[in-house]
Amino acid sequence: MKSRPTLAVVGATGAVGQVMLQILSQHADIWGEIRLIASPRSAGRKLAVRGEEVEVLALTEDAFEGVDIAMFDVPDEVAAHWAPIAAAQGAVVVDNSAAFRMDPDVPLVVPEVNPHAVRSRPRSLVASPNCTTLSMIVAVGALHAEFGLRELIVSSYQAASGAGREGVDTLRRQLTAVTGTGPRPAVAEPGTGPGDVRRAVGDDMGPFPGPLALNVVPWVGELREGGWSSEEMKVRDESRKILGLPDLRVAVTCVRVPVVTTHSLTVHARFEHEVTVERAREIIATAPGVVLFDDPAAGDFPTPADVVGTDPTWVGRVRRALDDPTALELFVCGDNLRKGAALNTAQLAEMVAREGREEREGREGREGW
Amino acid sequence: MKSRPTLAVVGATGAVGQVMLQILSQHADIWGEIRLIASPRSAGRKLAVRGEEVEVLALTEDAFEGVDIAMFDVPDEVAAHWAPIAAAQGAVVVDNSAAFRMDPDVPLVVPEVNPHAVRSRPRSLVASPNCTTLSMIVAVGALHAEFGLRELIVSSYQAASGAGREGVDTLRRQLTAVTGTGPRPAVAEPGTGPGDVRRAVGDDMGPFPGPLALNVVPWVGELREGGWSSEEMKVRDESRKILGLPDLRVAVTCVRVPVVTTHSLTVHARFEHEVTVERAREIIATAPGVVLFDDPAAGDFPTPADVVGTDPTWVGRVRRALDDPTALELFVCGDNLRKGAALNTAQLAEMVAREGREEREGREGREGW
Repeated sequence: MKSRPTLAVVGATGAVGQVMLQILSQHADIWGEIRLIASPRSAGRKLAVRGEEVEVLALTEDAFEGVDIAMFDVPDEVAAHWAPIAAAQGAVVVDNSAAFRMDPDVPLVVPEVNPHAVRSRPRSLVASPNCTTLSMIVAVGALHAEFGLRELIVSSYQAASGAGREGVDTLRRQLTAVTGTGPRPAVAEPGTGPGDVRRAVGDDMGPFPGPLALNVVPWVGELREGGWSSEEMKVRDESRKILGLPDLRVAVTCVRVPVVTTHSLTVHARFEHEVTVERAREIIATAPGVVLFDDPAAGDFPTPADVVGTDPTWVGRVRRALDDPTALELFVCGDNLRKGAALNTAQLAEMVAREGREEREGREGREGW
Repeated sequence: MKSRPTLAVVGATGAVGQVMLQILSQHADIWGEIRLIASPRSAGRKLAVRGEEVEVLALTEDAFEGVDIAMFDVPDEVAAHWAPIAAAQGAVVVDNSAAFRMDPDVPLVVPEVNPHAVRSRPRSLVASPNCTTLSMIVAVGALHAEFGLRELIVSSYQAASGAGREGVDTLRRQLTAVTGTGPRPAVAEPGTGPGDVRRAVGDDMGPFPGPLALNVVPWVGELREGGWSSEEMKVRDESRKILGLPDLRVAVTCVRVPVVTTHSLTVHARFEHEVTVERAREIIATAPGVVLFDDPAAGDFPTPADVVGTDPTWVGRVRRALDDPTALELFVCGDNLRKGAALNTAQLAEMVAREGREEREGREGREGW
């Protein structure tokens, strides 16, 4: 690796890619060249990163020439095809898709929870978890380190931007329709009846399997065995892998809510030992990447409107289960485009880059002795 | 009791009262006089019930003269004062407030779950449960009857109308503000940052402790010991009383969502014995007052937009926990103004009225022999 490694951002023009360029412009600048790569139809566009306009290149094998680290935020099938190509060209790939997360030869890493895992990457691939998993796992991981996790029962309140730009645009159009500024009648009235929201929204469902404005939709992802959704299976399987608990009991219900950005989750976490709220609050308050925001009497609990655009996992409503001294209840919010996607990927790329620098400095040091 | 009993509707002008008048106009007409009662400032208004305009009377002791059954939908402190006065005047009171629900001398009744309890009412009071409890308890009660319930872990997605007309009006004003048709800027954009929703909404929070448009708020009710909200304690305590399971483990997190009417809940229910999804689906499909709507491949799962204005509890996303053969996951929707409030109260009043008629017919029958 060069003294300042070359970084490729694959999927630079997507919703997560845009947040990634913001993050790269805000973080300490450890990169040499930053190369922006996207699908051929976006090639030639110019995007701002580190205060400079950079032209987007089309995704080809040649685009990875000289790249040290490549961050991928593209659909699963695109990552499955192109990430190994980038790796064969000599890049370490940090992939934000689901394509490699459960591959036993690919580490699935959250820097605050299992940083050591990043160093073992036989395929030159590192995977970043799903946004819903990431929105809670830093807080849960900190509690696990002290209390020993046995069971997670989780319900999500997932934002539209988890479905990309199309999700946000759809929510905005639907909100206009139901609040009555469009040609259809307003339905945000107490007398709203069955089907009124559907009539206002019409067929404009975008990527969602039901209307999202003035509604909640208990479905995210594709159908899996037993009636589970792929999103629910990801939260279970990825939590187990990140925490190193292959037999952890996990039950998840994923629900989409009419929020633009920031996923929220209720978490019922059962531990090996009795827990106290006092100690749980201390752990949450001091864990890296986590903020305790929990004083209901003062109106302090995290909500998406306050958390959006911030880096940490926000935790409130910390309670011990009334009927089970080994269980805690939490309400957790995390920006699904930042820590839930771009930020974790950037952190992993930075870890790999630092590791390269440390090795180089170590080698040079030894050579100097 | 007269052959057609006199019914009083106390709180006739509220959000629930209005739905109650619809229900009384739709159900079999078993009532003689229907007397509408409200606070003195609403007295003199005329409301339609059974196709007739009826003048609203002010809440006074005299207003209960000749009343056989009085349905109360008023704030707790109003019910606490006036329900015993109505009972002392000879009325059986069916109360929808929290004032008497946990009184051991007042039955807390859901007709589909514990109908027998309505007959034992030493104080001439019958209580109807909280809307969040009611939105799931019919489905949970049916499963309990077969499998034996051990533990409930519940997260709510509660509608604005649970906070009355003011809640709905607030949500509507906030939606207009955030979608940009008001004087403030639109924030329903992918780049929404921290505080943007708060800036658009300003101080217009209505009854909610945070902005509800484009947001979710993990707080409903008042603060109780240990960081719990009063709403969460109601779901726990009332579920235990209705099901006759005083030691049932219950953990609840209540969250408000930007929906006009219909509460949704995720339910993790653990039973004494191993369960099967097949049998659970049969029970749900055949239980009175419950509809199974569960075919994700066809897009069939309940959402508030489809459930609002209907009577039953809708159940979808029925799954067996992957790591616990004794637990089921459900997603449940119920109209919080109908079964969650007015409908259950009307059902209870009708049960009491039928009981009066059966007793009278039984006596007349014996006299005829």
